[in-house]
Amino acid sequence: MTDTKNLTIVSKNKIADGWVKKFNHSSDVLDCQMTFSIFLPPQAENQKVPVLYWLSGLTCTDDNFMQKAGAQRVASELGLAIVAPDTSPRGEGVADDPNGIYDLGLGAGFYVNATEAPWSEHYKMYDYVTKELPGLIQKNFSINNEKASISGHSMGGHGALICSLKNPGLYRSVSAFSPIVAPSQCPWGEKAFSHYLGKDKSSWKQYDSCELIKQATEQLPILIDQGDADDFLNEQLKPERLEQACKETNYPLTLRMQKGYDHSYYFISTFIEDHLRYHSKWLS
Amino acid sequence: MTDTKNLTIVSKNKIADGWVKKFNHSSDVLDCQMTFSIFLPPQAENQKVPVLYWLSGLTCTDDNFMQKAGAQRVASELGLAIVAPDTSPRGEGVADDPNGIYDLGLGAGFYVNATEAPWSEHYKMYDYVTKELPGLIQKNFSINNEKASISGHSMGGHGALICSLKNPGLYRSVSAFSPIVAPSQCPWGEKAFSHYLGKDKSSWKQYDSCELIKQATEQLPILIDQGDADDFLNEQLKPERLEQACKETNYPLTLRMQKGYDHSYYFISTFIEDHLRYHSKWLS
Repeated sequence: MTDTKNLTIVSKNKIADGWVKKFNHSSDVLDCQMTFSIFLPPQAENQKVPVLYWLSGLTCTDDNFMQKAGAQRVASELGLAIVAPDTSPRGEGVADDPNGIYDLGLGAGFYVNATEAPWSEHYKMYDYVTKELPGLIQKNFSINNEKASISGHSMGGHGALICSLKNPGLYRSVSAFSPIVAPSQCPWGEKAFSHYLGKDKSSWKQYDSCELIKQATEQLPILIDQGDADDFLNEQLKPERLEQACKETNYPLTLRMQKGYDHSYYFISTFIEDHLRYHSKWLS
Repeated sequence: MTDTKNLTIVSKNKIADGWVKKFNHSSDVLDCQMTFSIFLPPQAENQKVPVLYWLSGLTCTDDNFMQKAGAQRVASELGLAIVAPDTSPRGEGVADDPNGIYDLGLGAGFYVNATEAPWSEHYKMYDYVTKELPGLIQKNFSINNEKASISGHSMGGHGALICSLKNPGLYRSVSAFSPIVAPSQCPWGEKAFSHYLGKDKSSWKQYDSCELIKQATEQLPILIDQGDADDFLNEQLKPERLEQACKETNYPLTLRMQKGYDHSYYFISTFIEDHLRYHSKWLS
């Protein structure tokens, strides 16, 4: 464990009149060095701005969203900061899939707190994205964490949904692209959860949106975009399960099936403007 | 040499109501397999649309622009197709920098026709982008090559300028981001041209924008954006040389120095909308 909270800047690039900045820092929660990127709109030079936390999907780092989503033009107009953390702990000594497969270990933290060895040593992404990272952001940037929203893609869409459902009041709004809505009932989630949380499936419910919906004490509306040409739609993503859970509990869900779109950032870049404007409305 | 012109589709992704499609084909001119990407706006389903050829910079492939420039939203609105070729011949038997350095050989074709061994066997990027590729595009897509413009970045900005200057009437408009305007007088250009074209610098003039400006028979206005925080500005790019050449010949140049911006796609993504609207005006 280290006790420094200092940020080390890795790079900064001007874009859309604001800045994308990348930082390294020592994470207490994850017990390793971590990297995140932040977009600061020009308004942040004079005032505290609202913030959208973006959680990325399997195999991604903090870079994918910043480089490929095309979000900064609209975020700059709206005066919205965007924080993109990495998708898992990293570095020497951090456990990985024994066969190097992309859906477990590095790049695949699934935004849970692992309880099983060897994962429990570093894989505490839930605490990282809901507690440690927002604290760092609040302390180091011109950002008002009281005005925070959350979104994400695929594994990160799952992350955004569970972080919101488990923390009433923490976020003003939530949305997702192609989220894994029922990780307890799809191959990606079953593999990850059995490693991180153990074989007892009752412990999985605390990180499964379709389960959490049933216990929700606050009904923050959910906006989801899902491409109908997504290769992972039927086996992994299964939005109809969330639709059913929301119907049973009268939970407000807007699920938009987008004709012809797939799982890629080409899809995200097409609809990110809608999501940013949606969040901005809730944040103002 | 092969004689097939057939295209093989590698991937297609829906974006902004249009499609990014990637193709392989056998290039006669380059004598190797080549890859290019094309963005087809929705208007191309019903009519022939104008086209922007985009030439990328050192180390890039056809992917960088399509994934990072965020151009498709506006191109879709304008009904503009965009074609992005690779930056050099590729494959087994294609010569590369003997030390594997990024600024010669693979990913660094410099849009010239090489005359020196071993480069002359495959490195004919000038003929490829001005002749073979447009022919393929015209034949295979709903595109009107009579309405074509050209742009590019860095080495590709150089490419766009020389292709336009050397072919009056071929393009309706030309623009560039951070172009190498005087390759005969900067380290990148001197290294590449001495390998591809030989030690006799008189042969370099035919591919040097600052030289070509002097002989221009048609004065197509040039639009250039250049970041003033670009790490390559003073040693490699030297826009003041083009500014001087244009002044001497009364050639119409709009050179916009953009404060705080660097050489990255974050810069391109900020100003690509301006360039697309500029080209669209000339194309309609």
